[in-house]
Amino acid sequence: MDITNQQVRLAARPNGVPDESNWELTSEPVPDPGDGQVTVKILMLSLDPAMRGWMTDVPSYLPPVEIGDVMRAGALGQVIASRHPDYSEGDHVVGVLGAQEYAVADGAGLTKVDANLAPLPTFLGALGMTGLTAYFGLLEIGQAKEGDTVVVSGAAGAVGSVAGQIAKIKGCRAIGIAGGVDKCRFAVEELGFDAAIDYKADDVARALQREAPDGIDVYFDNVGGDILDAALANLAMRARVVICGAISQYNEDRMRGPSNYMMLLVRRARMEGFLVFDFVSKYQDAVAELASWLRAGKLKAREDVVDGGISAFPATFPRLFRGENVGKLVLKVGEPA
Amino acid sequence: MDITNQQVRLAARPNGVPDESNWELTSEPVPDPGDGQVTVKILMLSLDPAMRGWMTDVPSYLPPVEIGDVMRAGALGQVIASRHPDYSEGDHVVGVLGAQEYAVADGAGLTKVDANLAPLPTFLGALGMTGLTAYFGLLEIGQAKEGDTVVVSGAAGAVGSVAGQIAKIKGCRAIGIAGGVDKCRFAVEELGFDAAIDYKADDVARALQREAPDGIDVYFDNVGGDILDAALANLAMRARVVICGAISQYNEDRMRGPSNYMMLLVRRARMEGFLVFDFVSKYQDAVAELASWLRAGKLKAREDVVDGGISAFPATFPRLFRGENVGKLVLKVGEPA
Repeated sequence: MDITNQQVRLAARPNGVPDESNWELTSEPVPDPGDGQVTVKILMLSLDPAMRGWMTDVPSYLPPVEIGDVMRAGALGQVIASRHPDYSEGDHVVGVLGAQEYAVADGAGLTKVDANLAPLPTFLGALGMTGLTAYFGLLEIGQAKEGDTVVVSGAAGAVGSVAGQIAKIKGCRAIGIAGGVDKCRFAVEELGFDAAIDYKADDVARALQREAPDGIDVYFDNVGGDILDAALANLAMRARVVICGAISQYNEDRMRGPSNYMMLLVRRARMEGFLVFDFVSKYQDAVAELASWLRAGKLKAREDVVDGGISAFPATFPRLFRGENVGKLVLKVGEPA
Repeated sequence: MDITNQQVRLAARPNGVPDESNWELTSEPVPDPGDGQVTVKILMLSLDPAMRGWMTDVPSYLPPVEIGDVMRAGALGQVIASRHPDYSEGDHVVGVLGAQEYAVADGAGLTKVDANLAPLPTFLGALGMTGLTAYFGLLEIGQAKEGDTVVVSGAAGAVGSVAGQIAKIKGCRAIGIAGGVDKCRFAVEELGFDAAIDYKADDVARALQREAPDGIDVYFDNVGGDILDAALANLAMRARVVICGAISQYNEDRMRGPSNYMMLLVRRARMEGFLVFDFVSKYQDAVAELASWLRAGKLKAREDVVDGGISAFPATFPRLFRGENVGKLVLKVGEPA
């Protein structure tokens, strides 16, 4: 094709919070789709804390992005050329398409979405991997049930904001932990959390004791560090600690483990990690349920869309680690065809 | 009664490993049993790492022992006077009778044992709380099943030595971690572990990679610290980490948490704590099974009996933290009546 594809490639592995020096912007022609392939124009990128892990050269659940490769990223786009029977020009799709303006894909890992159902950014947020992560983490790993006290860290963030709302929908008491008055107000007033704790101003362990005097039944952790320790100190008997992320630790040289982990013994509790990909067979039902909650107004989708184009990727990504986003951070990279 | 009861009382809370300064030896007359009570002559005390926790003034699964109180301790003894219909003079009983020579008890928490079944110290070890802890930790919390690779730390210790043997009985591959060549040899040659790693000489993470190349399905942890981190780095998918103890950390000012806890996410694993008391309704069946394994020679009970009398308690207890005991540490405090 006679179009240029601008791409963000990993130039150097980061120390601490990634900055411009970690990226190289390159461009190449957009290839035509081969047999069985489609070419997708990417409209927006999902910016996720997990991407920080993919930049590091250590074994994990996915291989690291190699130096010189296009950065791995979830994306939403529109098919502009198709040689695949299941996809037509104009179809909206999501998938791990990379930090670039165009992608060629063979259909594996692509999911069509109905753009009439919700605003496009929502398919990367509440109706995308983010929403599914909150859904399966809270309900399958956390086994949250009516009457439980659920505490969610990163409560104003992408996953946390959905997890807390699902907790409320399921009849739990939902307590959020977030940084700053505005995020706490957002969690309570916009999202309907029963309470929110500002970790920048409050002693979190003491605040949890106050807000969850009978202990925490499910702690959904997105942050790690001191906040995880504060939650462990306040577990109820047989509590479930859901390890979804540890954003406070991703930019540290050495992860700090939870000093209070022996509370798992004291309270006969468990701590369990998961990845949303493990639940792929249940995605369809979960998305249907999330969509029904959205339609009914029980679940509010909130995205923080930066309209900067692909070249704004290096400056936008670190906002995650400075706690600047409210809701799902999305980078707009193209206009619908 | 006209007998003197020597007792070990908590004199001061410890910093680091407890020593003589933490204890006061006192004596008082042995009281006669009241209505519904028995007087027990204690023959031997169970010395357990958990007792270190009970000496500290922090909330836990049991209230701390108060300064001036007789130290809480499991014990085996013989009824010497009974005003309880279920107990007769001469009966052997186990229970939490305290670090003393005689105890008066009302029957709650006492369990009669058949001294013909096994040598008396075994009722504090493989047929006591120790064996039950290994049994429920491995099978209920760890869900160990045939073909699993099971790693046990403190493998030559009281609980670990039983846990590894149960793993073998259940058709698992059992790998022990212990300190020193002698303990490792004991684990493999006497107890039948498939392999043992000497944490004082080996790089444990690397040794686990070698001995468990497909990863650890169940990690039974008695020690915490670096060894827990090494195990976390080598988990198999959907592994179970059983938190039974953390002896490497009990004498530290501040517990160190496992830096590698995010491996729970990478491997979709869980870490769970438990207390043997939670399984009281299943004790009887478990003891019957443990006893049958003992009789069949499939399970070897090993106790490290110190014949020192009650006054040897202060000097004997810290042996646990210096790794000096092989098998269950028992302090003999009296002769059968």
